[in-house]
Amino acid sequence: MHVLVNAAMSADGKLSTRRREQVRISGDDDFARVDRLRAAADAVMVGVGTVLADDPSLVRFDRKHRQRVGKSGVPARVVADSRARTPPDAEILRGDAPTYVLASEAAPADRRRALVGAGAGLVVAGEGRVDLAAALGALSDDGVADLLVEGGGELIFSLVEAGLVDELSVFVGPLLIGGRDAPTLADGEGFVDDFPRLELDDVELLDGGAVLRWSLAE
Amino acid sequence: MHVLVNAAMSADGKLSTRRREQVRISGDDDFARVDRLRAAADAVMVGVGTVLADDPSLVRFDRKHRQRVGKSGVPARVVADSRARTPPDAEILRGDAPTYVLASEAAPADRRRALVGAGAGLVVAGEGRVDLAAALGALSDDGVADLLVEGGGELIFSLVEAGLVDELSVFVGPLLIGGRDAPTLADGEGFVDDFPRLELDDVELLDGGAVLRWSLAE
Ligand SMILES: NC(=O)c1ccc[n+]([C@@H]2O[C@H](COP(=O)([O-])OP(=O)(O)OC[C@H]3O[C@@H](n4cnc5c(N)ncnc54)[C@H](OP(=O)(O)O)[C@@H]3O)[C@@H](O)[C@H]2O)c1
Ligand SMILES: NC(=O)c1ccc[n+]([C@@H]2O[C@H](COP(=O)([O-])OP(=O)(O)OC[C@H]3O[C@@H](n4cnc5c(N)ncnc54)[C@H](OP(=O)(O)O)[C@@H]3O)[C@@H](O)[C@H]2O)c1
Repeated sequence: MHVLVNAAMSADGKLSTRRREQVRISGDDDFARVDRLRAAADAVMVGVGTVLADDPSLVRFDRKHRQRVGKSGVPARVVADSRARTPPDAEILRGDAPTYVLASEAAPADRRRALVGAGAGLVVAGEGRVDLAAALGALSDDGVADLLVEGGGELIFSLVEAGLVDELSVFVGPLLIGGRDAPTLADGEGFVDDFPRLELDDVELLDGGAVLRWSLAE
Repeated sequence: MHVLVNAAMSADGKLSTRRREQVRISGDDDFARVDRLRAAADAVMVGVGTVLADDPSLVRFDRKHRQRVGKSGVPARVVADSRARTPPDAEILRGDAPTYVLASEAAPADRRRALVGAGAGLVVAGEGRVDLAAALGALSDDGVADLLVEGGGELIFSLVEAGLVDELSVFVGPLLIGGRDAPTLADGEGFVDDFPRLELDDVELLDGGAVLRWSLAE
């Protein structure tokens, strides 16, 4: 499986404010870029923190670009959600695109049932938090070869820590958000040594900011 | 006074680890770039958080470049340090370059005396925290026309919040640090609306990363 992480951060590395309220960091050109990334993906993933904060639908993608890259159907959606906290009426469960909820043994049976009732494909992996390597393995067995991860920072950190990320594209936007408690591109515990190294593949100027495309060195 | 903020952050916006231990984010070419920025400055400023964490001397600069830009002498050093916590034996007080300690009324008399005894020029402005506008005004009266601020994130946020920053140059380095508690380029309380807007003046590829040069829109 190829895993690409994409996110938009302020010039100081924040994904949103300390109140976890969404900020318009990029603009129309970057949205079009993300729609192309989604078009080339078999599935688009977020953490449940993003579902609870923003209630995204993740259904928009560039249909022409999907034809060009030879993918059929629509990109599936994926939520990393250990305890099955995704509300059954969340946007990510609506519409025609299939949605996987990745949960762990910690998810209560009634919440699992509610999500399956709302149409989700449930994958259970791990005891406390979702075992991301195992869960992505299950997605892969289901035909997901190209996975686009759209945040947030807690999920991104765990994926990087588990060595599951191949590429990272980041729109760095023309504003400052600040805040020692605001979500950043990679949160979690953080590394204190053996920092994952990146290679800068490309820089593109867009919407008053810059898209930095990195690959994770192995 | 012209205020330029310069710092090096990881691709995810961190200045150091959650343990506040310094990380080599950039390389020799970026160090040379910073030495030129210092050469063109009348004074180089950090917050006391950086003094306590890293004990920098801030004496290195590009002497040839200083001649080229027509500045005489050496850049002074400045610490924002409300309670005068800078240790009297700190590197920033050693050597020939003069050092200003910006304190507030909250600084105990014995600590003020110790710093003056160690050769510091004491500027007192503000009651709780340093009143940065007033303190920078005093530096300006003393002939500081070009101020380079080298961090950390708490000081940078306050300077931006007070509308005192003209330019921001950031080396974005080829590694991930992560950590919801790691210092970022702009910490403090954070903005929740009326985000300071930036203009991207220039992108330069360096040391495997990119230097983004922004101006603060007014
Ligand atoms: N600017 C952008 O591009 C962008 C993109 C996305 C999000 N955002 C912003 O980011 C914020 C949300 O980010 P976030 O970091 O709080 O949430 P997140 O990364 O979307 O979700 C984190 C949650 O995922 C669940 N999870 C399940 N397995 C996990 C694992 N192995 N490792 C880590 N997490 C796992 C955890 O909850 P459980 O323990 O309950 O499972 C965790 O709390 C919002 O403010 C949103 O607006 C911005
Ligand atoms: N990568 C880089 O380029 C770079 C550069 C610099 C630092 N760093 C890292 O950043 C970390 C230190 O950063 P930091 O954010 O903790 O410290 P900081 O910004 O260097 O210093 C913050 C301190 O300055 C004092 N201060 C005085 N007046 C202030 C005001 N008006 N507003 C805000 N602060 C004021 C405060 O202490 P009082 O209240 O006691 O005055 C405050 O705690 C270290 O880990 C260091 O390694 C990295």
